[in-house]
Amino acid sequence: MAHFAVPGERLMANPVVVEVTRGALVESAHRGAGAVVDADGRVVMTFGDSERPVYPRSAIKALQALPLVESGAADRLGLSDKEIALACASHSGGEDHVATARAMLAKAGYDEEALECGAHWPLGEDEARALARSGRTPTALHNNCSGKHAGFVCLSCAMGVNPKGYVAPDHPVQREITASIEAMTGARLSEAMRGVDGCAIPAYAVPLVALARGFACLGTGHGLSPERGKAVARIRAAVAAHPVTVAGRGRFDTEMMSLLGARVFIKSGAEGVACAALPEAGLGLAVKADDGAGRAAQVMIAALIRRFGDLDEQTEARLAPFVSPRLSNWNRAGVGLLRPTGPLA
Amino acid sequence: MAHFAVPGERLMANPVVVEVTRGALVESAHRGAGAVVDADGRVVMTFGDSERPVYPRSAIKALQALPLVESGAADRLGLSDKEIALACASHSGGEDHVATARAMLAKAGYDEEALECGAHWPLGEDEARALARSGRTPTALHNNCSGKHAGFVCLSCAMGVNPKGYVAPDHPVQREITASIEAMTGARLSEAMRGVDGCAIPAYAVPLVALARGFACLGTGHGLSPERGKAVARIRAAVAAHPVTVAGRGRFDTEMMSLLGARVFIKSGAEGVACAALPEAGLGLAVKADDGAGRAAQVMIAALIRRFGDLDEQTEARLAPFVSPRLSNWNRAGVGLLRPTGPLA
Repeated sequence: MAHFAVPGERLMANPVVVEVTRGALVESAHRGAGAVVDADGRVVMTFGDSERPVYPRSAIKALQALPLVESGAADRLGLSDKEIALACASHSGGEDHVATARAMLAKAGYDEEALECGAHWPLGEDEARALARSGRTPTALHNNCSGKHAGFVCLSCAMGVNPKGYVAPDHPVQREITASIEAMTGARLSEAMRGVDGCAIPAYAVPLVALARGFACLGTGHGLSPERGKAVARIRAAVAAHPVTVAGRGRFDTEMMSLLGARVFIKSGAEGVACAALPEAGLGLAVKADDGAGRAAQVMIAALIRRFGDLDEQTEARLAPFVSPRLSNWNRAGVGLLRPTGPLA
Repeated sequence: MAHFAVPGERLMANPVVVEVTRGALVESAHRGAGAVVDADGRVVMTFGDSERPVYPRSAIKALQALPLVESGAADRLGLSDKEIALACASHSGGEDHVATARAMLAKAGYDEEALECGAHWPLGEDEARALARSGRTPTALHNNCSGKHAGFVCLSCAMGVNPKGYVAPDHPVQREITASIEAMTGARLSEAMRGVDGCAIPAYAVPLVALARGFACLGTGHGLSPERGKAVARIRAAVAAHPVTVAGRGRFDTEMMSLLGARVFIKSGAEGVACAALPEAGLGLAVKADDGAGRAAQVMIAALIRRFGDLDEQTEARLAPFVSPRLSNWNRAGVGLLRPTGPLA
């Protein structure tokens, strides 16, 4: 991948897409790229270098959960919609998240010892403080990826495979998942474009246009086999019914999906990635902030949802604080804001 | 300020200075600008748009603490070196930080009710969890700026002025501070380039070259009146003696100054700003990441310190983890790194 040898040059073309103001000045600015694509791969809009492969990170957890549902493993183990939602989650590590992950593992006959994601303090600040207040320390169940990993253990179990080592690229579970991402996005996942994710599983780089197409397919089922179409519909319904399970109270994905319901499926990933499906419009969206800033990805994806989401005026008004969030000081006085600019203005 | 009307255009020139890798690929990249200047204002090195005014945020707390020391207020109230260090701090909100801020206020005859910075949970994750574990909630004393604000109350008190409203731009305390920043940097602080900081005080934009010059003066005392020269030396000594007071254990400024001692004075600010003084080399440094990322500012300033700090080989080796920090997953396996690039390679 010669173009990655000079990433500065490749990134040069990406426009400023989000500004951060304070007082009269622009204090900081984010560059980025993005794509809006339909399920046939027709490109509706791009900005920046939308062909550049980026690590989607947690933004594609739904695609990673697809084999669990499509294979029938979720049904055979009797996973609930909430448990399927947790398999797609970067959760806040609250008590309900932890209990749900534990229950998933139990259905497969395992416990948290089977998780290979590592432990960290809950992503949610309230959840982290609640855990500290209780005098306990975090386990792998508190890891924001524990639902995804519990899903991997469930899939492994249903496949009749020992889950041990399920984070390795050549474990049967990861092979299934890689195939699912390739089928949904149309991209080839290559070893040359692979890293290790925060939770230890392989991270493959995928072009933004391909990610957007994958989300268009996820949102519509268009072009998928009947089994896969049924599986994506079940995942969408599970997430729409459990937006707090997928992230947590006060977090972007949860609040956006609580506002918009089944009209949108959103998943953010680390390092400034976000993907979304707009089932009614038949579109998939994918964005990446060059610098990895989550706040920029949120503004980008909210701006695209406003533009392509066919929203009524009232919903659009309620979306405004996500498209252009207000920045406050510790006395809760407004001091600035984020706003989409350039191709997203 | 016409050039701020098209910030995207102005920022266009700034080079990629920090790359974030994962596996074989560059996952994210940060652009930025910086300046290395001596106390006479001679520019030793710049990269990017170093003339663009940026909000220095907390990076100039030492300049904001200068009137407290230079006026003799600190001596009259009997402030210790640790208390002077806390006046320059963005602290982690630990018990010692809180107790020190409380003691400063008491010396001026006030308590935390006088603080106008607002309350927030401790910046330090360990400190926040310790507070949660204790069952308490944060007060203004836990605000990372509480030492600076306690210093403002002390200065006000020593000036014979009611501290109430000390965060307002036209309060005598803020007028003193504005004059101090102007004198040290040589920049004019204008109302047209003003915002409100997170802790409610005015934030004035200052060109990076001027910030770097101010830090060269802070580091050397060169060109300052004897009183001011004595004051900057006292501030440097106070911070060098109390690096944990100025930030907190595990935080960049504290760890860098613990490593380098009085050879460097570093202060980071929000939105990707960092300033440093290298007294022996007679230089001041100032950097700003376009996107506001603190991790990028840290790598930039560490790279400049390595280049201009006249360090012996052993110290340079110990600096390496700050110049190019390793990124780990939750299992503590290395997955990537940050590294300076372009003009900082």
